Amino acid sequence: MRRFIVIGHKAATAADFKLDDLAGGAGRLDVLLRCINSAFFLSHDIRRDVEVVLILQGPPGPVRTIRLVGSELRYLNPDERSTGALIRNALMRDAKGEERSTPGIYVSARSFQDVLALLDKGTELVYLREDGQDIRGVELPKDVTFVLSDHMDLSPDEEDLLLQYGPRVLTLGPMSYHADHCITIVNNELDRRSL
Amino acid sequence: MRRFIVIGHKAATAADFKLDDLAGGAGRLDVLLRCINSAFFLSHDIRRDVEVVLILQGPPGPVRTIRLVGSELRYLNPDERSTGALIRNALMRDAKGEERSTPGIYVSARSFQDVLALLDKGTELVYLREDGQDIRGVELPKDVTFVLSDHMDLSPDEEDLLLQYGPRVLTLGPMSYHADHCITIVNNELDRRSL
Repeated sequence: MRRFIVIGHKAATAADFKLDDLAGGAGRLDVLLRCINSAFFLSHDIRRDVEVVLILQGPPGPVRTIRLVGSELRYLNPDERSTGALIRNALMRDAKGEERSTPGIYVSARSFQDVLALLDKGTELVYLREDGQDIRGVELPKDVTFVLSDHMDLSPDEEDLLLQYGPRVLTLGPMSYHADHCITIVNNELDRRSL
Repeated sequence: MRRFIVIGHKAATAADFKLDDLAGGAGRLDVLLRCINSAFFLSHDIRRDVEVVLILQGPPGPVRTIRLVGSELRYLNPDERSTGALIRNALMRDAKGEERSTPGIYVSARSFQDVLALLDKGTELVYLREDGQDIRGVELPKDVTFVLSDHMDLSPDEEDLLLQYGPRVLTLGPMSYHADHCITIVNNELDRRSL
């Protein structure tokens, strides 16, 4: 299993945003929607061995976590608007416990701390950061979980929390990339290894 | 200069599509918009040494080519909808010769054949195809032009035309990727070399 956890610091936590305004009123939800696209889409297929966990921390609160499970997903299209509609549907749920909104999409009130605590102990945690070790030189197990941030860096508190779990700190190259581009590059790197 | 030529086989050639329907009525223009995002965006910057050439071949016709020049671009945001608006603006022009619609965005009636014929002779042409040689083992010059297709393969005629130019045929890995993901992977590979 490849897992991508992405924190959306300003991303809407209620379903009252407009699909015409995903980059504005929805708190840069567009970034997270592109992460979904990068994580799951192959040319004529969806990656079944991938899970995406979006942690929405914007207004009005409290935090909402959307989990997308590749092996169960349906109705996912590559464009931002239709994926935005799926996320908005998920945000209409109460999120007591973890609720399914559409096949493969789950919503809960879990925080970043909760999400980390619930991770399978067998997974290798990776924190993607510019000053990390080059991913191309690093062996990774099949079960690996990457932590990324939206257009903002992790806050000091979030970083402290993550570092308590002793993640590998890896980099993808000499430039600083958008989160969705990072996911595409990671997927390609891991595809090359699974042959 | 890195250049990405992308053929949009069904992409709208008139400005009468809705920004709410980029993946439908605009002929999968969403694919091309994500290619623009992948080609130009760094975390807090736009790549100035990149050019994107979109060849729109859908209805009502005739063909329209949109050229985006990184060193001149303004008003480009990462989300699909706002980039769709820029492309729609370009399609409102007459396109006699090559006309600028907004800074860094040019529209013309050039065909794929015209675009290839106008390429600088010094550029290395690369055709990305699943059965090509692995890009990681191949030296490339600074001036390199990649040819990609949208959600459909190149037609036999398009491929014949391209092959007359003797391109390198390269692959990015063992899976078949969306065009925008290909561009992200290529950018990362070339970033690693330009250090």
